[in-house]
Amino acid sequence: MSVKHRIHDLLAPAKPGDTLSQAFDIVLVTLIGLNVAALVLETVDSVYVGALEFFRWFEIVSVAIFSVEYILRIWVCVVDPRFASPVGGRVRFARSPLALIDLAAVLPFYLPMVGVDARFLRAIRCFRVFRILKLVRYWGTLQLFARVFASRKEQLALTICILCLLLLVASSLMYHAEHHVQPQAFSSIPAAMWWAVATVSTVGYGDVYPITGWGKVLASLIAILGVGLFALPTGILGAAFVEELQSKPKATRCRHCGKEL
Amino acid sequence: MSVKHRIHDLLAPAKPGDTLSQAFDIVLVTLIGLNVAALVLETVDSVYVGALEFFRWFEIVSVAIFSVEYILRIWVCVVDPRFASPVGGRVRFARSPLALIDLAAVLPFYLPMVGVDARFLRAIRCFRVFRILKLVRYWGTLQLFARVFASRKEQLALTICILCLLLLVASSLMYHAEHHVQPQAFSSIPAAMWWAVATVSTVGYGDVYPITGWGKVLASLIAILGVGLFALPTGILGAAFVEELQSKPKATRCRHCGKEL
Amino acid sequence: MSVKHRIHDLLAPAKPGDTLSQAFDIVLVTLIGLNVAALVLETVDSVYVGALEFFRWFEIVSVAIFSVEYILRIWVCVVDPRFASPVGGRVRFARSPLALIDLAAVLPFYLPMVGVDARFLRAIRCFRVFRILKLVRYWGTLQLFARVFASRKEQLALTICILCLLLLVASSLMYHAEHHVQPQAFSSIPAAMWWAVATVSTVGYGDVYPITGWGKVLASLIAILGVGLFALPTGILGAAFVEELQSKPKATRCRHCGKEL
Amino acid sequence: MSVKHRIHDLLAPAKPGDTLSQAFDIVLVTLIGLNVAALVLETVDSVYVGALEFFRWFEIVSVAIFSVEYILRIWVCVVDPRFASPVGGRVRFARSPLALIDLAAVLPFYLPMVGVDARFLRAIRCFRVFRILKLVRYWGTLQLFARVFASRKEQLALTICILCLLLLVASSLMYHAEHHVQPQAFSSIPAAMWWAVATVSTVGYGDVYPITGWGKVLASLIAILGVGLFALPTGILGAAFVEELQSKPKATRCRHCGKEL
Repeated sequence: MSVKHRIHDLLAPAKPGDTLSQAFDIVLVTLIGLNVAALVLETVDSVYVGALEFFRWFEIVSVAIFSVEYILRIWVCVVDPRFASPVGGRVRFARSPLALIDLAAVLPFYLPMVGVDARFLRAIRCFRVFRILKLVRYWGTLQLFARVFASRKEQLALTICILCLLLLVASSLMYHAEHHVQPQAFSSIPAAMWWAVATVSTVGYGDVYPITGWGKVLASLIAILGVGLFALPTGILGAAFVEELQSKPKATRCRHCGKEL
Repeated sequence: MSVKHRIHDLLAPAKPGDTLSQAFDIVLVTLIGLNVAALVLETVDSVYVGALEFFRWFEIVSVAIFSVEYILRIWVCVVDPRFASPVGGRVRFARSPLALIDLAAVLPFYLPMVGVDARFLRAIRCFRVFRILKLVRYWGTLQLFARVFASRKEQLALTICILCLLLLVASSLMYHAEHHVQPQAFSSIPAAMWWAVATVSTVGYGDVYPITGWGKVLASLIAILGVGLFALPTGILGAAFVEELQSKPKATRCRHCGKEL
Repeated sequence: MSVKHRIHDLLAPAKPGDTLSQAFDIVLVTLIGLNVAALVLETVDSVYVGALEFFRWFEIVSVAIFSVEYILRIWVCVVDPRFASPVGGRVRFARSPLALIDLAAVLPFYLPMVGVDARFLRAIRCFRVFRILKLVRYWGTLQLFARVFASRKEQLALTICILCLLLLVASSLMYHAEHHVQPQAFSSIPAAMWWAVATVSTVGYGDVYPITGWGKVLASLIAILGVGLFALPTGILGAAFVEELQSKPKATRCRHCGKEL
Repeated sequence: MSVKHRIHDLLAPAKPGDTLSQAFDIVLVTLIGLNVAALVLETVDSVYVGALEFFRWFEIVSVAIFSVEYILRIWVCVVDPRFASPVGGRVRFARSPLALIDLAAVLPFYLPMVGVDARFLRAIRCFRVFRILKLVRYWGTLQLFARVFASRKEQLALTICILCLLLLVASSLMYHAEHHVQPQAFSSIPAAMWWAVATVSTVGYGDVYPITGWGKVLASLIAILGVGLFALPTGILGAAFVEELQSKPKATRCRHCGKEL
């Protein structure tokens, strides 16, 4: 087996028995976990101040490892028949979601060097955590979820359309009902939409709420419609899971005669 | 094909291959989207002040186009066999929901000319956005939703009845429990109903809440009953979607004659 | 037909063609609706002060009519084969839910005469609205709901047990976590339970919330467990509705050979 | 029957007809209930101060009874074939969840004697309430719930993974959006996570909320995603309950041999 093939196997989720590949997976997953932890802890002043140097070096080491890993993945991807052509295959691989996440994990480190301020982009590194899912046995379940969502794509999209429309109508009406008594809270329709989202999603922070009679009547209707609306995706997904369940091939046999039912 | 027929085809959702009709659809949908955006942005002072003239002209142009479109629709509707009679058919067409929405989109512009202050009615124009749904492929899905809701009409209506009853009883009891210590917040049963809606829908803005012991016990029961109550429409719609799914024709065969069912 | 039979028919939901009985139904429904409206409006000071006398007379007239109706119902119930025996049948009828609601609607008026202040109980009169449901076509749907709930009695009861346990554990832990920094808000476990209900039901008024680190970690876990817990009744009722749907007798036949499938 | 066997029968849920065992069950359940009530009421100052001595003695008596019960259970557990070996069987029994709960109920009383401050651990006693479930007829239903959860273990675990990821990404983005204008409320990513949990679970206390434009847009997306995410467990559990329902043995007959399946 060529070096290229061996590296491809090491980077891919470990096959049973391949101890080195398994060790590699564990190191990578641990590193991803530590990176996420560092990302979170860096923002806690009491932790950050005491470990400034540590975070700086950890960042450099992590990015170095992830960069090498990314380059290796691009190099060896041609082993996979789907990305076989040296140039076109590698470009297609680089555009796949997982490869883009890998790139996003290291890019924020290099961008400042070429003059781009990318502190904000570092949040993208969180997405790297998706890689963890790839390694664990939930992979099958994730595909089931993807299948369930895909089979109800249009219904869920329509639910979102109806939601947007409800938000639009709710915030328009509310703006007209409340603007003259609460010019601060309901200063414009986009501002009223913040109220509408908080109400329809039933979060209800309480920073904005109607105080006029009509405003309260409207808000009541919208709150109840909102709860009703969220019964839709639940019903849709419920039915999709039931369908998934029924499509499982069952081969039950009669206990008495042994023939398939 | 007569002019009337051609206009009817242009105004109706485009058939595959009819490029002009498709272009017409896209223009109309874009115009509707821009109108909704204008409606929303007009209320943002910083945007409005800088583009006062623009909004005025955009309004006039939009209403002109929508008015012409509405008149054309009324004129050509007789092409459709359902609205064939010149007078009766046109009246019936004008009373259909989509035609009423079209009318509602332009009426607020003309009403002030005859002395009616209709600024508030402009919010109705948002409903025009429903027209977008008509053009896209979600139409089938929307009909599925309508079928699901229609098949559970009575159950959903009863759920709303129970909800109203719960709100009524909750606000009555709460009024008696809290009125004497919070005469402002729970000034009357209608006022207490605002609290009841915010609690049962689990929005919980926090502008009104019980402070007496009994009030809190009552509120706890009502909050839990509220969540339980909203399990009803979810269960109902879930079962309706499952039924819809089971009624889909599957390539099953009759056990007796072997033909496909 | 005896007077007793005729009164029984008048009081029961009208049969098609029985105009007098239909008129009777409409009068009763209207009176119940007006009573509920009066109950609500009496608490609005601006309305009440102007119509003090009216409300007093309306109350007396309503209670008089409802009292006569109640006595008549008790008198004629023996016409129904289920309550045939003059004493035992009437007692059994008086103990049926609808008869108890009828009694509850008038009792608060008489109790003060014997020294009990029961004005508070007048809210119960709202339940009389159930009578309206009986008259309209929702009665069958209400029975369906009752059947669905009855078939899942134990599962729903267990859900409530788990909920109570969660509330108990959550409020105990939270009391220990927050009592020392917020002695007012978390003064005792019963006080902490008010917070627990507001969190688990996701109402979240915002009058009480944790401020310590551990308190917030606990509250986060409880909030998420709470939402998860409310997925249980929804799933249970969903399955119950699906079962209800499947138990409907269907007699489908093959399109080709006509035999039952 | 030996003493050991008799005690085993008394401690186990009563068999029909065994009156003494039933009485024993009722005493134990009542004692557990009173202990939970005492635990709760002790924290109410007005109750505690007036009954200091009572609570102290009730505690001593309860712990004495529970300790004796625990020792007896350990002693007689060898009657059960699963824990037959005198030492190994008893150790295995002591490690079973129910035995651990029993131990947790008395341990906090003894720990201070050996120098451990275990006031906090007393909250654990609440778990003893689980014992009540064992005695009532909901046992079968509890097993059904356990089966439903077990059959969807992976799907629910994945839902929790997605939830954690959403919380992580949401709090990271929100920290960057709001930190510079609300350095107190969004002081770090862990602090922002408190906001994220309150939003995604739709509790929305209102102690922390975004005030910048981008923050509000982000919060809106997260609130809606949050509600959508909670449709997942509902759909999953719904399908699990439907499956449970379908796997119930029905008196169906085999088409081939006609025997009951």
